Amino acid sequence: MMPVLDGVVMELQDCALPLLREVIPTDQEEVAFKDLDIAILVGSMPRREGMERKDLLKANVAIFKSQGTALDKYAKKTVKVLVVGNPANTNCLIAAKSAPSIPKENFSCLTRLDHNRARSQVAMRCGIPADNVKNVIIWGNHSSTQYPDVHHCKVNIKGKEEAAFDVVKDDAWLKGDFISTVQQRGAAVIKARKLSSAMSAAKAICDHMRDIWTGTPDGEFISMGVYSSGNSYSVPEDLIYSFPVTIKDKSWKIADGLPINEFSRAKMDATAAELVEERDTAVAFLSA
Amino acid sequence: MMPVLDGVVMELQDCALPLLREVIPTDQEEVAFKDLDIAILVGSMPRREGMERKDLLKANVAIFKSQGTALDKYAKKTVKVLVVGNPANTNCLIAAKSAPSIPKENFSCLTRLDHNRARSQVAMRCGIPADNVKNVIIWGNHSSTQYPDVHHCKVNIKGKEEAAFDVVKDDAWLKGDFISTVQQRGAAVIKARKLSSAMSAAKAICDHMRDIWTGTPDGEFISMGVYSSGNSYSVPEDLIYSFPVTIKDKSWKIADGLPINEFSRAKMDATAAELVEERDTAVAFLSA
Repeated sequence: MMPVLDGVVMELQDCALPLLREVIPTDQEEVAFKDLDIAILVGSMPRREGMERKDLLKANVAIFKSQGTALDKYAKKTVKVLVVGNPANTNCLIAAKSAPSIPKENFSCLTRLDHNRARSQVAMRCGIPADNVKNVIIWGNHSSTQYPDVHHCKVNIKGKEEAAFDVVKDDAWLKGDFISTVQQRGAAVIKARKLSSAMSAAKAICDHMRDIWTGTPDGEFISMGVYSSGNSYSVPEDLIYSFPVTIKDKSWKIADGLPINEFSRAKMDATAAELVEERDTAVAFLSA
Repeated sequence: MMPVLDGVVMELQDCALPLLREVIPTDQEEVAFKDLDIAILVGSMPRREGMERKDLLKANVAIFKSQGTALDKYAKKTVKVLVVGNPANTNCLIAAKSAPSIPKENFSCLTRLDHNRARSQVAMRCGIPADNVKNVIIWGNHSSTQYPDVHHCKVNIKGKEEAAFDVVKDDAWLKGDFISTVQQRGAAVIKARKLSSAMSAAKAICDHMRDIWTGTPDGEFISMGVYSSGNSYSVPEDLIYSFPVTIKDKSWKIADGLPINEFSRAKMDATAAELVEERDTAVAFLSA
């Protein structure tokens, strides 16, 4: 893939980007991870037809153990690590566990694409721009068990902020098709394009990293997969779980204390259960 | 391609872009061109192996005659039309000729990617960001006969503006490999990536259209293919030829009066000759 990488470098150069200083294409970990401030880990083993979930996890544990170890060895201790490659939450956990000298809080996984999809679905339903929708939440795993939750979502209609449920006035949709549309969106894009999401994933990565760097606006939270210490929303500890977070001074904080109804609780628990299972399988490979 | 287009629409929606209001996917000209403020014509017939240049032009004349006619019929008379599909200059000329009710000045073709490539090559050579390089020029055709010219290029080194030739101090490179690198860059990217330029072309389209909309900075010109009335730089009339232009109030003006040496003159004439030949072949098909 090195010649292809050279082509990507040419593309970057040809953009004449004002902030780009240098590109170092490499397949050497000690070069790639050296003194990093930010690491965006996009590569992983994709699921192939006929592949067992266990084999998929095993292959990815090998990749993210290696990348975590390299981060531990070569990157700055302040590095912010974003894992995008699927299964992103568990890959992120494995990378964090393999980099004991870097705080677990510096690791996150991407659920911002799901977050943006949820935001845009509500916006289209209300006939307003996506910017006028805030505080959707993606809970849990970046998989089809994720729970896109609009119980705390506000929409801005002609300058007035209202609850999404009050504006949409269609509980059946918000608790039904809306959720499954966001959960299944990746598959729908592949079916139509014959290719995975590309631009929207790149946009979500930029949104995620920009918010880590510059913080979230007052009164607003965004979704990202972060380390669960077991102290928020009764989510089991030692998982990378997507929560609503606010960010300030490059540190995230879970937006705690939101009321959770029974409907939400069940979905938050289901996606947590999937993550526990993924973790236990992956950690067994890690120590094997 | 309509299902694939639906996938592209999903991608756009999933970006949750703050300025995007609505996307209308269609294969109907009367829908696509209705009341347009901006048209970016990216589709054209690519050259296939064994295809004669004449056959290529014939196929593209059919496409751009049809799109020009549709612009004439459905778009606003103030529409700004950017042609990207190759051969971009001649396709642009055919579209303009097929839209007699729209001023020819509203049509332009993309040479901004070549412009950005030239800028970035000089910047890398000087070890400075691309932003610190201005007033490169792409003359003529968006083809391998284009002339990337740095005789009027300024580079900003530690706050001081100097002529590129004085900073680079390597006339052989600036008059040799620099020119051929920019001319052949598209082919080099395809060879490495096995795919055409994508991100850098999209970036160049944005740069081009943003400059039309918001103008060029004082003291700076950019390159675009525009209608030659025969009054600038002895370029024959009735060609879409890439010139250095400044833009104000959504109107471009050729940056006239730059001294042209013999070296440049010969290259500007060679690319003009190619365009004259393309035009004459294409116009014959247009009236056939």
